[in-house]
Amino acid sequence: MDLLVMKFGGSSVSTIAKINRTAEKIMDAKNNGHRVIAVVSAMGKTTDQLVSLANELSESPNKRDMDMLLSTGEQVTISLLSIALREKGCKTVSYTGWQAGILTENIHGNARIIDVRKQKIAEQLALDKVVIVAGFQGMTEDGEITTLGRGGSDTTAVALAAAFKASKCLICTDVPGVFTSDPRYIEKARKLDSVSYDEMLELANLGASVLHPRAVEFAKNYLIPLEVCSSMENIPGTLIEEEVSMEKNLVVRGVAFEEDITRISVFWKSHKSMNLASIFSMLAAHHVNVDIIIQSLTNHDRTNLSFSIKNNDLKETLQVLEENKALLGFEEMEFETGLAKVSIVGSGMISNPGVAAEMFQIIDRNHIQMKMVSTSEIKISAVVEANEMLKAANVLHEAFGLSNKIYEKGLSIQPS
Amino acid sequence: MDLLVMKFGGSSVSTIAKINRTAEKIMDAKNNGHRVIAVVSAMGKTTDQLVSLANELSESPNKRDMDMLLSTGEQVTISLLSIALREKGCKTVSYTGWQAGILTENIHGNARIIDVRKQKIAEQLALDKVVIVAGFQGMTEDGEITTLGRGGSDTTAVALAAAFKASKCLICTDVPGVFTSDPRYIEKARKLDSVSYDEMLELANLGASVLHPRAVEFAKNYLIPLEVCSSMENIPGTLIEEEVSMEKNLVVRGVAFEEDITRISVFWKSHKSMNLASIFSMLAAHHVNVDIIIQSLTNHDRTNLSFSIKNNDLKETLQVLEENKALLGFEEMEFETGLAKVSIVGSGMISNPGVAAEMFQIIDRNHIQMKMVSTSEIKISAVVEANEMLKAANVLHEAFGLSNKIYEKGLSIQPS
Repeated sequence: MDLLVMKFGGSSVSTIAKINRTAEKIMDAKNNGHRVIAVVSAMGKTTDQLVSLANELSESPNKRDMDMLLSTGEQVTISLLSIALREKGCKTVSYTGWQAGILTENIHGNARIIDVRKQKIAEQLALDKVVIVAGFQGMTEDGEITTLGRGGSDTTAVALAAAFKASKCLICTDVPGVFTSDPRYIEKARKLDSVSYDEMLELANLGASVLHPRAVEFAKNYLIPLEVCSSMENIPGTLIEEEVSMEKNLVVRGVAFEEDITRISVFWKSHKSMNLASIFSMLAAHHVNVDIIIQSLTNHDRTNLSFSIKNNDLKETLQVLEENKALLGFEEMEFETGLAKVSIVGSGMISNPGVAAEMFQIIDRNHIQMKMVSTSEIKISAVVEANEMLKAANVLHEAFGLSNKIYEKGLSIQPS
Repeated sequence: MDLLVMKFGGSSVSTIAKINRTAEKIMDAKNNGHRVIAVVSAMGKTTDQLVSLANELSESPNKRDMDMLLSTGEQVTISLLSIALREKGCKTVSYTGWQAGILTENIHGNARIIDVRKQKIAEQLALDKVVIVAGFQGMTEDGEITTLGRGGSDTTAVALAAAFKASKCLICTDVPGVFTSDPRYIEKARKLDSVSYDEMLELANLGASVLHPRAVEFAKNYLIPLEVCSSMENIPGTLIEEEVSMEKNLVVRGVAFEEDITRISVFWKSHKSMNLASIFSMLAAHHVNVDIIIQSLTNHDRTNLSFSIKNNDLKETLQVLEENKALLGFEEMEFETGLAKVSIVGSGMISNPGVAAEMFQIIDRNHIQMKMVSTSEIKISAVVEANEMLKAANVLHEAFGLSNKIYEKGLSIQPS
């Protein structure tokens, strides 16, 4: 009998009615002959509410205390889901992270899973029980409760799927799958039947919030087939696997975008005085996430570095730079807020070197100014004015043929 | 440096402001040179809210699931209290029941503590930290989360006080101590400086809700001095210890009362057919709590048994009796609702055999009818009409001199 790991996020268990619906979805899988491990998150906004309580007491609460506090959220859900399943006649057992044998490194707030001690869950699966596990949490060797940081429940699910050699890890969520772009803003966005791990990684990093990049990376390393699907309907979702069979000729698989980008530029009199490592290690120490970095050494004396950050890191960034101006040896700096990033993703780009040029042409043809550009093997990002973000995303979605069901390279790029 | 165990109930940690006040009270103890283990309950009505959620899913949720669910309540409190204390500059560590080494028997919903594994807490106390422990919960040898049932946090506190040989176990609550009677109804009720374990046991069993009888029994067995005191003010509370030094001449220490009592009477044609053990084991199997039992064998053929139960057990009791009428061999039964129990408690009664007679005289003199009477070595209870309960309690409180600060046997019984 094959094993499914089914993960349900906070929005899938936010009310008693939704917990009952989740229980039904698990029963369906069980009745179809699968063994099931269910991994759940905290109900709806529980985590946010707990964080608010802590912040009433302290601006920067201790991370061990926060792990202790937040891990209660999933523990409530596993209990309630177990009660719901038993009420429907299903044999269950619920486990916290530590009971489930999720062993993590000794870091609070953002621990990585280092091992899964399988004995308990294996015993319970052998008794034909649905095993319900609290996502997002684990325990250190010393018996300290840890949490896994953002996307932690996804990571728990994939780790369990790897440990127990599940046939598939279902990520059940409030959208029916992974889309070519955000359907709230891109009218013609459509659900993808499949994407590769790498494409999903880029999409996830670019803000497609259905799945956390850490979990995708984990799944890629262990070759766990993932499926992002609806927690409410029994329809196929999007399969994430190594070889994308259905749509392998698609060069661009998705268009992602995010707002609230700020560009920072720093100027030196001479490139001899530049010290990139110092800047970025200082910013990292202040938890500023730097995204795109552009540095072009020229033969001119005066040189510069530009990088993009999220708007809410701006104050911290300016302060760090200003305080360390002498040490970093720069002459002046400037910043530009109100920007946005638009990206195209697709593993087909690797074998199609002209894609970047096509993207820039499309953007240019639509009279949108690009402020910064960054490329990876399967992703190209352009920073544009925020008020042109959706226009850029729409024209790229259309031009790279994502609005149509089947697209082959070169067939459907239309002048806009 | 001596060790204090300080227990704070749900009402002492029901809001962020109260958690801060609780943190201050702990800091005071620390600054006065004590080491401190703090034991806390779930915030305010949290447990009730979690029970409601479970009941939306199932009328009779599984007890293991309920333990998993309810134990999150105290875990939230320990985290928040730790955050509050750290914010005030205090070194802390918070532990769930299982982390604190509270080992229980393998029963869900009402487990007893069988051992305290001391290593972790001992290490942290040696580091001069305030150790914060989730009350009401523990773990079995197999790593199952259990809860201790009603009064569980009191029991956790006393168990830790015993294990770590604390100089005192403070039960910090929303009243300033143990009173001679309920001050909400008995105007002249006053706070006792001290009571003995046995007196507190009787008072607790009779509904003085400040302290659970299980915890008192535990404290008595290990001779742990208990003090019931206010969680808000720094004033002495009521000391509970083996030898009551301050008021040892007080014959009656308190007047307790409770409503919602029903009398059940069962009649047999002949006492030969009576089988008391069967009746009470049947009722126990249906979780009916029987309080006072009166059975008087006479030489007459027809005989009867009366016992008192809580009103909300009436339906169940009548059903059990009716269904087993043939087996139990009784002829008929009757019941009377709308009754109440008034009790006087005091260890001085042991050496003063006339106290029961005095009590009955006082009640009689006030034209109150007694329906049932029950005595123990240090307690006398009378069942009266519910509408005469407060009158009876007041006249007993006055007549046995509890309204005055110092009372010596025989001095202040006044005709009413």
